[in-house]
Amino acid sequence: MHILVTNDDGVTAPGLLALAQEIRKLGKVTVFAPDKNWSASGHVKTLERPLRVRETTLADGTPAFTSDGAPSDCVALPLLGLTDPVDLVVSGINPHANISHDVTYSGTVTAAMEAVITGVRGIAVSLDSPDGHKGLLDYSTAAIVGRRVVEQVLADGLPEGVVLNVNVPYLKEEELKGYMITRQGLRVYRDKLDSRLDPRGKPYYWIGGDLPTGVDEPGTDFGALRAGYVSITPLQLDLTHYKAMDVLKKWKF
Amino acid sequence: MHILVTNDDGVTAPGLLALAQEIRKLGKVTVFAPDKNWSASGHVKTLERPLRVRETTLADGTPAFTSDGAPSDCVALPLLGLTDPVDLVVSGINPHANISHDVTYSGTVTAAMEAVITGVRGIAVSLDSPDGHKGLLDYSTAAIVGRRVVEQVLADGLPEGVVLNVNVPYLKEEELKGYMITRQGLRVYRDKLDSRLDPRGKPYYWIGGDLPTGVDEPGTDFGALRAGYVSITPLQLDLTHYKAMDVLKKWKF
Repeated sequence: MHILVTNDDGVTAPGLLALAQEIRKLGKVTVFAPDKNWSASGHVKTLERPLRVRETTLADGTPAFTSDGAPSDCVALPLLGLTDPVDLVVSGINPHANISHDVTYSGTVTAAMEAVITGVRGIAVSLDSPDGHKGLLDYSTAAIVGRRVVEQVLADGLPEGVVLNVNVPYLKEEELKGYMITRQGLRVYRDKLDSRLDPRGKPYYWIGGDLPTGVDEPGTDFGALRAGYVSITPLQLDLTHYKAMDVLKKWKF
Repeated sequence: MHILVTNDDGVTAPGLLALAQEIRKLGKVTVFAPDKNWSASGHVKTLERPLRVRETTLADGTPAFTSDGAPSDCVALPLLGLTDPVDLVVSGINPHANISHDVTYSGTVTAAMEAVITGVRGIAVSLDSPDGHKGLLDYSTAAIVGRRVVEQVLADGLPEGVVLNVNVPYLKEEELKGYMITRQGLRVYRDKLDSRLDPRGKPYYWIGGDLPTGVDEPGTDFGALRAGYVSITPLQLDLTHYKAMDVLKKWKF
């Protein structure tokens, strides 16, 4: 069993270390992660430039690979043969939840998508840390949950084409209410345009505003987290809106 | 009617000009596009740095805005209020098809997704140009098709949450077989790892290999293009794999 561990926050991120340490209990682990933070960078395939790969070590002294590619490139390179064949990819632990419409923006989730597109099982793990949290986050519960989900997948398999999107409440392990299989909920983004002038009087713009929230519905990823459950959402890569097809088929051109 | 036209190939791309010129026949158009090529860059929200916006002109002398943000940022900024309120976003014309699993990678498609997430209708238009085509592409058919699809959407509306992914065969308008409402097909990527040594003997890696192909199934985007039809695929932003939920609900933690 050879498991690839990656993330979108970069190879030095503490969430990556916590995840790698837990997953190592299950088999051979290769860590292959970006050399910088790629949060909200989406699903990337770097074709216009070559990629560098460097050997490094994590904070616990274990070896890792790092690349100047995006998270999905850090999955593509090993899966194209830069390492031994990979059986499963785990991406994370992201320091914020990746729920609802976050999934197409998220480097953590799109890294897992990249695995599934290539025919390898892919799991994304994110921590629903409290808004405005200061200081170091405690990834220990999320790491244990990540390992348990991987154990489950190794034991029972996954339906073909499924990407698992796992989000973990910021609780101690014994405080978790349980595990819930959820659907993608509705995100509420609260972005605002923040226009400023630079020292030379020229305008520049931040995408600012409040952190996103969500619609607290039972059965959704957001609802599960709110209720203290680990949220496991199976995602698919067929985005066809089948119901809308019937409506559009009435169009006359 | 205020229509935003954007793309992922950058503000100087001929596909953007061809699309803007056709869409201008329908109402007020604002062109707002990246200042560089963002192909295969995925769905981005630029939060870690501020964005610049510059006024420029297209090759026909008409005004346009350009930004150092990603395609989805070029949608977010106007929709957050940098321009007058926008009724519809059209993205393209991409010089290659965006079908099947391309949709999460594609800057063209994720720009349209960004619109729909914000509650504005979003349409992506791509041209299925022949592999290995040399010289300038003829965007005239795709531009006309783009305009017709927008007219249809303005006349009949779109079901809520639908992103339209339009792909146009590389044919003259009179050679088109028609318009087909399709589902997302199966892409076959043929990426290969191309390992090289730099002049200093250090390795670097290209994601190389042949161009992607697809599974030629009737009813799919790929199948429609192969048969000479415009492919219109309604996409959704709920990626939940509902069938897999029942399987996963049997898991015991």
